Amino acid sequence: MSLKVGVYGGGGYAGAELVRLLGGHPKVGGLEVASRGYAGRPVSEVYPQISTDSSFVGPEEIGASGLDVAFVAYGHGESAATVAALLENGVGLVVDLSADFRLPEVGMYEEWYGAHPAPGLLAEAHYGLPEVFGAAEGRIIANPGCYPTAAVLALAPVVRRAGGGIKSIVINALSGVSGAGASPSVKTHFVSANENANAYGAPRHRHTPEIEAMLRRVEGGAGTPEITFVPHLIPITRGELETIVVDAEEIPDAEEVLGWYAEDYAGWAFVEAREEYPHIAHVANTNRCRLSAAVDRRAGKLLLFSAVDNLLKGASGAAVQNMNLALGFGEDLGLEHLK
Amino acid sequence: MSLKVGVYGGGGYAGAELVRLLGGHPKVGGLEVASRGYAGRPVSEVYPQISTDSSFVGPEEIGASGLDVAFVAYGHGESAATVAALLENGVGLVVDLSADFRLPEVGMYEEWYGAHPAPGLLAEAHYGLPEVFGAAEGRIIANPGCYPTAAVLALAPVVRRAGGGIKSIVINALSGVSGAGASPSVKTHFVSANENANAYGAPRHRHTPEIEAMLRRVEGGAGTPEITFVPHLIPITRGELETIVVDAEEIPDAEEVLGWYAEDYAGWAFVEAREEYPHIAHVANTNRCRLSAAVDRRAGKLLLFSAVDNLLKGASGAAVQNMNLALGFGEDLGLEHLK
Amino acid sequence: MSLKVGVYGGGGYAGAELVRLLGGHPKVGGLEVASRGYAGRPVSEVYPQISTDSSFVGPEEIGASGLDVAFVAYGHGESAATVAALLENGVGLVVDLSADFRLPEVGMYEEWYGAHPAPGLLAEAHYGLPEVFGAAEGRIIANPGCYPTAAVLALAPVVRRAGGGIKSIVINALSGVSGAGASPSVKTHFVSANENANAYGAPRHRHTPEIEAMLRRVEGGAGTPEITFVPHLIPITRGELETIVVDAEEIPDAEEVLGWYAEDYAGWAFVEAREEYPHIAHVANTNRCRLSAAVDRRAGKLLLFSAVDNLLKGASGAAVQNMNLALGFGEDLGLEHLK
Amino acid sequence: MSLKVGVYGGGGYAGAELVRLLGGHPKVGGLEVASRGYAGRPVSEVYPQISTDSSFVGPEEIGASGLDVAFVAYGHGESAATVAALLENGVGLVVDLSADFRLPEVGMYEEWYGAHPAPGLLAEAHYGLPEVFGAAEGRIIANPGCYPTAAVLALAPVVRRAGGGIKSIVINALSGVSGAGASPSVKTHFVSANENANAYGAPRHRHTPEIEAMLRRVEGGAGTPEITFVPHLIPITRGELETIVVDAEEIPDAEEVLGWYAEDYAGWAFVEAREEYPHIAHVANTNRCRLSAAVDRRAGKLLLFSAVDNLLKGASGAAVQNMNLALGFGEDLGLEHLK
Repeated sequence: MSLKVGVYGGGGYAGAELVRLLGGHPKVGGLEVASRGYAGRPVSEVYPQISTDSSFVGPEEIGASGLDVAFVAYGHGESAATVAALLENGVGLVVDLSADFRLPEVGMYEEWYGAHPAPGLLAEAHYGLPEVFGAAEGRIIANPGCYPTAAVLALAPVVRRAGGGIKSIVINALSGVSGAGASPSVKTHFVSANENANAYGAPRHRHTPEIEAMLRRVEGGAGTPEITFVPHLIPITRGELETIVVDAEEIPDAEEVLGWYAEDYAGWAFVEAREEYPHIAHVANTNRCRLSAAVDRRAGKLLLFSAVDNLLKGASGAAVQNMNLALGFGEDLGLEHLK
Repeated sequence: MSLKVGVYGGGGYAGAELVRLLGGHPKVGGLEVASRGYAGRPVSEVYPQISTDSSFVGPEEIGASGLDVAFVAYGHGESAATVAALLENGVGLVVDLSADFRLPEVGMYEEWYGAHPAPGLLAEAHYGLPEVFGAAEGRIIANPGCYPTAAVLALAPVVRRAGGGIKSIVINALSGVSGAGASPSVKTHFVSANENANAYGAPRHRHTPEIEAMLRRVEGGAGTPEITFVPHLIPITRGELETIVVDAEEIPDAEEVLGWYAEDYAGWAFVEAREEYPHIAHVANTNRCRLSAAVDRRAGKLLLFSAVDNLLKGASGAAVQNMNLALGFGEDLGLEHLK
Repeated sequence: MSLKVGVYGGGGYAGAELVRLLGGHPKVGGLEVASRGYAGRPVSEVYPQISTDSSFVGPEEIGASGLDVAFVAYGHGESAATVAALLENGVGLVVDLSADFRLPEVGMYEEWYGAHPAPGLLAEAHYGLPEVFGAAEGRIIANPGCYPTAAVLALAPVVRRAGGGIKSIVINALSGVSGAGASPSVKTHFVSANENANAYGAPRHRHTPEIEAMLRRVEGGAGTPEITFVPHLIPITRGELETIVVDAEEIPDAEEVLGWYAEDYAGWAFVEAREEYPHIAHVANTNRCRLSAAVDRRAGKLLLFSAVDNLLKGASGAAVQNMNLALGFGEDLGLEHLK
Repeated sequence: MSLKVGVYGGGGYAGAELVRLLGGHPKVGGLEVASRGYAGRPVSEVYPQISTDSSFVGPEEIGASGLDVAFVAYGHGESAATVAALLENGVGLVVDLSADFRLPEVGMYEEWYGAHPAPGLLAEAHYGLPEVFGAAEGRIIANPGCYPTAAVLALAPVVRRAGGGIKSIVINALSGVSGAGASPSVKTHFVSANENANAYGAPRHRHTPEIEAMLRRVEGGAGTPEITFVPHLIPITRGELETIVVDAEEIPDAEEVLGWYAEDYAGWAFVEAREEYPHIAHVANTNRCRLSAAVDRRAGKLLLFSAVDNLLKGASGAAVQNMNLALGFGEDLGLEHLK
């Protein structure tokens, strides 16, 4: 099999990672990368760290009707129209890296993002966190947000066993600056971000409802309470770390939680729990999620720790993993060096 | 007045900052700096960023009996004996930067640190967070820990008004690597700390009981619950940021909390609340504490944000501020450029 | 004396430093800060790390005719017109931080920058590197470029003694990202600059002729050859380090060169030579220049090392120092904590 | 073919990279990694960023007589004895990452390093810079130093064409902190290295004679003059950038030099010249060397730029590439994702 693959919105950081990963993927025979801003320029001129002979094209230059798989890395609100058009053109599988198909209900999307551009397709989308929700079966994969990836992987096994008793969930997250996107701004200026750290977006960051919705979809999780989610920007390029504090009627031992992780993620290549608290450096430049757990008996709280690379397991690595699973390949095909 | 001042344990980061601050202090006429490791070496050779002609001496070379003020920057357990000896020598004021005199009860110290080296002096120590507990009156000032400084400044005004109703306090803290001390180790190696972040010390970091004890000493705070405190190391040199999530029976508005801050800290030079969440860069290289507040109505939580420079307001700057107040000077004397 | 001072172009990094320094200067009684982009906004909102109650105004809102001193921090080409207008309004002293008055000849300016906007004033400008060229006497001080400051301080003593024999000068410079200015761009994006380093601007960086011209103005330096100047961007916020390789007919010993530095800079507060090679961390956040020298006898080369903080000794600190000297104050007035 | 491979000195940064690369190499069937300091500990506990089930062993635990290939990553002086013992045990190929076999003459080694521990083997060693000196034929590959790799790749094509006319070579190099090794020290402490940069080791860094000796071995390079080599430490984890200034009787055009690079390195996978000056970020985490050239006509100098990742092309990546070539594999086998 030799897949013809198109990437839309290839000019951002997630797009650039897709180009790198798909360019080395053994099943990808043809790869076209669209970027409105960079159309006509060699990819390796815009991203000199990527070795490739290909050039960016305009989105309309990709022969959509001939694609086997399309990845869409536009912003939310902008993505859904392209997804719809691709499906109409007969593309068999679309992996959407935006937020457009992540929330299960139109009303929820409207509350946090505004009018949904393609509500009719929402029911068709599969939320692409395979270690929790299995491989995709449909035509649309909603690639999860980076923060929800780390959060739901850490929390789903706990929700499954203790869901009913969970009284409160507080997530403090740290993110590298690539999470703020490639557009230059005062906040992403080196001088602003370096030797600095700050909370932002709380208490209404848009990944909040995504985490809640996905936890409520886990078996036993229907009653999961609203979460408090506070992301912080820290001066690193890539990687995210979440420290999750759970208050519940019964607090298990840390070893028990590590056992749940081992059980639930057995056989999955990219998720691993350890006694040692995860460092961002343990997962940066990989497709891994590393988990750990501890218990604060004095205050009666369960602590969970979860780290991912926001551009790989939190975006493009997961997108390729999702494609692999949807097409029946091994989940780590082309991602072996990122385990 | 021309004070004769001695610094013990001047070779670490807090000691070096003390040398810098006291070297430029208008009331300090004589300054001797002891460091066992560096005795005999010029200070500006060990710390080339400090301009001074003085050299480190051995601790026994300082004429303790002639000192007006002594600063002790040894590790916990080691500090108290020196403090006791200095008082016996008639030194009028000792500012201790270790943990030895911070906890109010011997039993609490024993639980978290081990046997106390000078329990008889404990009752005499004043906890040096003047914006909450006023200027020192006695001979021993227990200079607060860096994390407790940020936490208690953020929480005390809330505890005063809502103390009885507080159900849970979760503190997530970020710290620069200088907080880990000057001793080279694998974790402080540039290659380990750079492009990284990780939780550490939780759930039993030693600043936990200090925060709890001080909150319980605030009016209305007797019933403050055990807190969950999770510090993280981030790749910056200096500065700390705490994000504090409070669950209480009634959650005030953010504006109300900002008003409490304005009221309680009116007239104090170094503590300021703003609507904008504090960044570490707003306080680094200053003696400031910057505060803010937000409310998560969905989850029913109050969010507090607090930032300090761990080496200044979190250590040496506060130590000089405490000396100033104890001796009747303006709190910002010699610290004007750090406001 | 209570000076009325105006800052034009106060919204950039050099302007912000000027606000900080002048705000704490004991002779400055009134300070107005103009910024077209930020007019009307509180300074401490735009630069939360600066404590001040003042707000930016539009340049036309400053009562220029009442100013004792003006600092102009516009870009080259843009600055000279403002300088001319200020002089016409009777402002006694103008410190220009742009390149407009640094080059001694109109032709040289035209070659590197384009048409000069006020050629008639060029002869009146004093190049503000006092440790080499003395205190200003006229109305216009051309504040030196950051790279030329470090280069000329390191080279002038050598040129004075060995000028005629110098055959080649190669300057490799490292600069923090604040040197690239406050405007967000792809190259100043944190993700671009972090974990990176690259040469730029060579072989025709505009500081090249400034260095050459000033060396030729040093006694004995008329025949100084064209220099090769290669700046590099490195991932730090502030500071510059130059490594200068000199080929000459006779190569002195390093000790001899250190002696020349001691002799030439005796009595000056901010320039100091040491045996230890200077680190950027030794000068960051200070108004210092630190120098050193070494000899490569195998290859027959003299190595000079020079470090400054690009925003202080390389810009705003020097500007205040220049004002101090021009007005007959001590050079370090208001800069004592930056020595 | 399934190779049995042993790594000696696997506990340092270069060793850890070897474990990662050899662990994923398709021809490596058995891998044993020795580290005196870490013997008995799981590799993934010491280096959590490496996914592997293997544990470090003591060097004596490796069955040397059964090895097909050995990599030795000890310090200079220490390495040669192990290399000798491995050869006596019949190991077919030894790649030595130390300096012990890099210099072509015993006297030169003695001058810069001290007594040579195995002078009889020196003549047998092949200097492993294949793009300049071809694939290894003997049993010992002297893996080049990181700085010489970047320098010789940039200079060899120039020396070949203009060797006789070269009058002077000045190399300024920037290195990430991993180049200083994994041992914690004051200089590698995060607080020392962060927000800093400094020259070190000049003018007698030990890579100086290695560069000179290798340039003199290039055709036409016999008369290459002594070079001036000034390395600098900059606050990044990995990567090196060299800016090389060449004075010669005739200075070619930059385009001509780029043409020489294209010609000499045609067919080699990891060396590429571009018009754009190389950034460290273009080569970090890859086995690439990126080159560029410019001409300073005013001063009459040729500028060459060369960037490598010090741990990959400057150490472990090159070591695997050398093994590949010596055993007749493609040079990029197992390194495809590092192109």
